[in-house]
Amino acid sequence: MSSLRIALAQLNVTVGDLDGNRRLIEQAIRQAHAWLADLLVVPELAITGYPPEDLLLKPSFIEANAAALRRLIPLIPSGLVVLVGYVDRDLQGRLYNAAAVLTGGRQIATYRKQCLPNYGVFDEKRYFTAGTQSVVVKVAGWRVGVTICEDLWEEQPAQDLAEAGCHLMANLSASPYYAGKLPMRQRVFSHRAKAHHMAIAYCNLVGGQDELIFDGASLVLDARGRVRAQGRQFREDHLIVDVLPEWLGAAGNIRSRIAGKQRVRPLVAASQPPLFGHLEEVYEALVLGLRDYVRKNGFEKVVLGLSGGVDSALTACLAVDALGANQVVGVVMPSRYSSRATQADARALAKVLGIDYREISIEPAFRAYLSILRPIFKGCAPDTTEQNIQARIRGNLLMALSNKFGWLVLTTGNKSELATGYCTLYGDMAGGFAVIKDVPKTLVYQLAWWRNRSGREGRIPSRVLRRAPTAELAAHQIDQDTLPPYPMLDRLVHAYVEEDRSVREILRENRAPAHTVQHVVQMIDRSEYKRRQGAPGMKITPKAFGRDRRMPITNRYHQSQ
Amino acid sequence: MSSLRIALAQLNVTVGDLDGNRRLIEQAIRQAHAWLADLLVVPELAITGYPPEDLLLKPSFIEANAAALRRLIPLIPSGLVVLVGYVDRDLQGRLYNAAAVLTGGRQIATYRKQCLPNYGVFDEKRYFTAGTQSVVVKVAGWRVGVTICEDLWEEQPAQDLAEAGCHLMANLSASPYYAGKLPMRQRVFSHRAKAHHMAIAYCNLVGGQDELIFDGASLVLDARGRVRAQGRQFREDHLIVDVLPEWLGAAGNIRSRIAGKQRVRPLVAASQPPLFGHLEEVYEALVLGLRDYVRKNGFEKVVLGLSGGVDSALTACLAVDALGANQVVGVVMPSRYSSRATQADARALAKVLGIDYREISIEPAFRAYLSILRPIFKGCAPDTTEQNIQARIRGNLLMALSNKFGWLVLTTGNKSELATGYCTLYGDMAGGFAVIKDVPKTLVYQLAWWRNRSGREGRIPSRVLRRAPTAELAAHQIDQDTLPPYPMLDRLVHAYVEEDRSVREILRENRAPAHTVQHVVQMIDRSEYKRRQGAPGMKITPKAFGRDRRMPITNRYHQSQ
Repeated sequence: MSSLRIALAQLNVTVGDLDGNRRLIEQAIRQAHAWLADLLVVPELAITGYPPEDLLLKPSFIEANAAALRRLIPLIPSGLVVLVGYVDRDLQGRLYNAAAVLTGGRQIATYRKQCLPNYGVFDEKRYFTAGTQSVVVKVAGWRVGVTICEDLWEEQPAQDLAEAGCHLMANLSASPYYAGKLPMRQRVFSHRAKAHHMAIAYCNLVGGQDELIFDGASLVLDARGRVRAQGRQFREDHLIVDVLPEWLGAAGNIRSRIAGKQRVRPLVAASQPPLFGHLEEVYEALVLGLRDYVRKNGFEKVVLGLSGGVDSALTACLAVDALGANQVVGVVMPSRYSSRATQADARALAKVLGIDYREISIEPAFRAYLSILRPIFKGCAPDTTEQNIQARIRGNLLMALSNKFGWLVLTTGNKSELATGYCTLYGDMAGGFAVIKDVPKTLVYQLAWWRNRSGREGRIPSRVLRRAPTAELAAHQIDQDTLPPYPMLDRLVHAYVEEDRSVREILRENRAPAHTVQHVVQMIDRSEYKRRQGAPGMKITPKAFGRDRRMPITNRYHQSQ
Repeated sequence: MSSLRIALAQLNVTVGDLDGNRRLIEQAIRQAHAWLADLLVVPELAITGYPPEDLLLKPSFIEANAAALRRLIPLIPSGLVVLVGYVDRDLQGRLYNAAAVLTGGRQIATYRKQCLPNYGVFDEKRYFTAGTQSVVVKVAGWRVGVTICEDLWEEQPAQDLAEAGCHLMANLSASPYYAGKLPMRQRVFSHRAKAHHMAIAYCNLVGGQDELIFDGASLVLDARGRVRAQGRQFREDHLIVDVLPEWLGAAGNIRSRIAGKQRVRPLVAASQPPLFGHLEEVYEALVLGLRDYVRKNGFEKVVLGLSGGVDSALTACLAVDALGANQVVGVVMPSRYSSRATQADARALAKVLGIDYREISIEPAFRAYLSILRPIFKGCAPDTTEQNIQARIRGNLLMALSNKFGWLVLTTGNKSELATGYCTLYGDMAGGFAVIKDVPKTLVYQLAWWRNRSGREGRIPSRVLRRAPTAELAAHQIDQDTLPPYPMLDRLVHAYVEEDRSVREILRENRAPAHTVQHVVQMIDRSEYKRRQGAPGMKITPKAFGRDRRMPITNRYHQSQ
């Protein structure tokens, strides 16, 4: 039994870009061929991009996807087996999340995904019928089983492949990122490899798609569950790995009698780039997702409001690192409540980052609103209404710049604010992309400090990182007038939102006063209507607001305990 | 075999209101008992409300739902069988969309829904495991099969019940409304009854829940598929129906030998209220959905902008008919581009409807924006930016009134606008509930004319209905400068959005110029980002924007033909 040379093309495809995606796969085929690979694996649904959502309901889209696959087939030489993710349709019109097995100018088999995820951000049962058959292909004497993403997270498909005498499982994947998922993946895959005595070659998608970030980090494991090669995180990558018979352990030796003819080629060294640390990983995820949202939607420049606070500072840094300083415009929009210090910090940040920078006082507009509303508001005390007006003027100004110059507005709200509704609908929530909407405030600070230490150009003024958080929408206002301290708030949001804990459980598990817990839970429940109209933004936790958490607005379930 | 007396409690429950829903079911039990009914059917998931969405992921919610059911059980006398929709959980923690069969103070059986819809607005496979067993209960000598909603739309469950010798199928349902669904339901149910020789008692939910309207119109059919009784549309209703052995036809005669003991009670006459005509039906649906959104979310008053156009006029009428004139506030917000005629019409409408009415000129705020943006916009020609600023000032003013007085802002945009993006994000799109977002412009006109003829108080000035539609955001502007004529546009939106037709098919089926079709399709594709941030609103067509149509924003699939 000779070694098996696998190419994993960790591609950044785009949803709906059938021609562009096909061309990326063509390049991968040429490269794999040049490297004398036996097997090329590309990500799940690489032809359509992932997730294509309701594009799948358009018959014309399914046809175009099949046409793109047909154009690939003749390009594939006979020495190479290629696994391509696409949408398969049967004679009854049912759709399958499928992998075409292509070689020698022919499609020799089709694998249909058996385990369809329909939880969290996934809706695969909305579109697809589950396959029921294993597919094992002979490649250079190796028995290679084909699976798609979720198939690898469940027991049965691997079990079936083991019974079919499979040496290696190839997995086409589109596995959305959240912080901490990578070690979990390694644990699950390692367990699977060991339990079924087979090597695993897992090719993951990379890139951003609306709320989702795909992190790449493709993996090759031996049959003992050890990682033998890894793709880069958050970058396109083409892995080439020689899987050696001895990686199969005992199974490899026993089965070596059925080996094919030896191909002469020098072994390649498998790459295992060092993994990012926790903060760098989250930061790089956000950079990738932001860059892809901007570029894939055809924007060149982005614009955001700079308040002198940490949220807009971090968002500006992410934008600069994703797009380059000359593609980012910062706007400072002072009011009567803006302090000299925050304004100076906002300007200082724009300067050190080297971004284009504008200043527009909102006072004339604020005065105009107050005057035209005066007759109607007669006798009413000022309240959050007047605060929201200021936030909405800023939102309108940013949108005016967006409309006039074609810039994408980035919002700067964090997860703690969005959870509690400590934000203004159509105000600071106005924009096309909510960069840090899934980043809790405490993590915002950590990321900001981390970036300052990372050596990247332009440090956030340390005063920004040390000042008590304030919305500056009223005199002497700080966030903690309204919200509990952020470290406590973020723990409560985590427990209630990400872990679906009840108030009683939260009280048992957290040191927090009962009235604080009840108040936070109430704020979260009551803000659903705001979140429903919020801008899309990137998921980086196990449960983000958005497609990941689908709560009714009309909802009378309120826990008192 | 004696007659079977069925009570169908067509309830308006509220999602999450476990106590309130339980009390409604208790009332229905008392009433059914007083009527000497043998069987009471309430809607699907009546305990939790439908759809409870991700509340189902909270273990505490599932427990509270079970506790509510437990409180019902002892109330049920032995002469009455009650079918109650609730969430069942098995020992492995799997959830089921279930019906508890209760009688004599005990739960004697549990039916678990077998067909779980996971298309359109439905996500049931996200939460529930499918049941696999039929449940047939003996009630007063009749063999009654239990099914839940979708089970009745598929063949297998009825087939299984027929094989079990079932006389009558009881169906607990929560079937969302769209125009034209009622006759389809009757056809499907009639076919099912005939094919399997069983009567059907279908109890549907009534009421509004976020984007969905449940229309009631519960049905009892005999085994020949004839409708024998019908619940009211868009109202709570308690049907009481004596199902007679002869309704089973031959099957009834053959099986009459197995009859139970005769109960003495006079027969009740089954009600079959006349059905609404098409326009009245849609109008009543919108009234119900709007009233429920407002009330169930705890609002008393609503506010909307009155432009003098037909969209805001129809929305105002709907609000008055849903809530009463004294709960509705209209705001006229003229600018330099507002004509005397539209302003006069807006005022006239407010007067004839008898609603509270305010006037706020947006000019001071508009001038303030233009002046503070002048330095940045130097050298730029006016374009849609300046138009959007006006729309956003109006949005901000309505939101200020909402914030100050606790009124819910209604948006007035129609489906044709929302499809093409002929609307301003954070401007006319700003608000809590989008009343007519699924109503195409041509239907807006028909509904407005219909209401004027309906005899309801306050007619829309006929000038509003005859004027060429205009946004009045620039001089001499009419909608048809930008959009094709509405009758053509609405046909194209219907074909592309509701029927997922390709450009080629649309051209084949519609008399419309190719460039118009391409332009409309492009406008629809490019407006996804706006719709994503739009207010929720009611579904009245087979495919609404919102949870019904889940398109990616980042999407490079654009059909040229």
